Amino acid sequence: MSFELTECRLVYRKYFPFWDNLTDDQRGLLCSNTSTHRFAKGTNIHGIEDVCTGAILVISGCLRAYLLSENGREITLYRFNPGEVCMLSASCVLKSITFDVVIDAEEDSEVYIVRGDIMARVAQENLYVENYALDNAVKRFSDVVWVMQQIMFLSLDKRIAVFLWDEMSKTGSMEIKMTHEQIAKYISSAREAVTRMLKYFAGEGILELSRKGIRIIDKKKLRELIS
Amino acid sequence: MSFELTECRLVYRKYFPFWDNLTDDQRGLLCSNTSTHRFAKGTNIHGIEDVCTGAILVISGCLRAYLLSENGREITLYRFNPGEVCMLSASCVLKSITFDVVIDAEEDSEVYIVRGDIMARVAQENLYVENYALDNAVKRFSDVVWVMQQIMFLSLDKRIAVFLWDEMSKTGSMEIKMTHEQIAKYISSAREAVTRMLKYFAGEGILELSRKGIRIIDKKKLRELIS
Repeated sequence: MSFELTECRLVYRKYFPFWDNLTDDQRGLLCSNTSTHRFAKGTNIHGIEDVCTGAILVISGCLRAYLLSENGREITLYRFNPGEVCMLSASCVLKSITFDVVIDAEEDSEVYIVRGDIMARVAQENLYVENYALDNAVKRFSDVVWVMQQIMFLSLDKRIAVFLWDEMSKTGSMEIKMTHEQIAKYISSAREAVTRMLKYFAGEGILELSRKGIRIIDKKKLRELIS
Repeated sequence: MSFELTECRLVYRKYFPFWDNLTDDQRGLLCSNTSTHRFAKGTNIHGIEDVCTGAILVISGCLRAYLLSENGREITLYRFNPGEVCMLSASCVLKSITFDVVIDAEEDSEVYIVRGDIMARVAQENLYVENYALDNAVKRFSDVVWVMQQIMFLSLDKRIAVFLWDEMSKTGSMEIKMTHEQIAKYISSAREAVTRMLKYFAGEGILELSRKGIRIIDKKKLRELIS
């Protein structure tokens, strides 16, 4: 559903730095074409039907953006956390972006969506809006190159160690409740290879494996694998 | 060496769409900080010493931009042909770009370089310049994702076939005068794997191998591998 102008002003002022440079008409247009949505964990939000969904602002939860190959292989590019805006779901705004990303709700999520065609219209009129959209995309460019370097240049032990370390830091817990299959998907590797490496790590006393997932028991050793 | 204002105006008007939106001061500043350079084939232009070289406009020849790992592995991201501008060598202009690319002259090349710190100053004052820099980077973002998809999703036979096809189309010749080592570098694979696949292609009557390089003898079969 779309929302009241007062609420809209608050949200835009907080998350979109171009707000102060909009005309009243542009503000009204954006607000009347911004809507709130809730997506259950695992729901596809953008990409399978390849339309210009629009700019997606995450209020709560987490979205995952990934590339999908014809035979179903995935490469996770990045995640969007609360307060972050995804512009790659607005290909009609960013005409130079010629690839398709798929975006799923990784957790139960609440988001605001600004309609793509409306955002494109305002961006065409207002250089600040276009500038914001481009800058948002360039930031993700760096993330993607980082992923590429992880995949291409790091060996598997390092890649898994980096992933576990990041998860641990993100959740603040030594318990990582994910299957080997899920980890393999995130780091774009094969499940078998991940399982073998995790068993090797368990043998080294770095972690324990159980049905529930993984428990880190030696942070120092894990850290050493990364540096 | 830097060049005359008259020549500068011509070059900027032709290659930089922001020229009409600059003040006279900004025009003078850019022109007095733009210089011409010639680089012999194989010369490193940017990246090993990690400074903000600036915007590089290719006049003749060809530049190659790539990622370099600690142990010397390379991933070619894209090439710059005459008339194209590289902004990723101006990290002080594009603050959101946090990765380092290396840029070499792939052929004998003539380029114009706009000093990075000066370009950054003008971009800070003038939204059109910043916009140009961001848009230039976003275009390369799509190229990089394409490379990533080639590497991650395509199997080796397709990757080599795509490479040979592109080279053939680019040079207009059925002869590809490159070593297997060079091809392996371009497609980010191992030399042994490339040699094996080329021998397989030769066995299939797609190409002939000799000391000089590769000669395509069946374009139709090569094309079939790609589609």
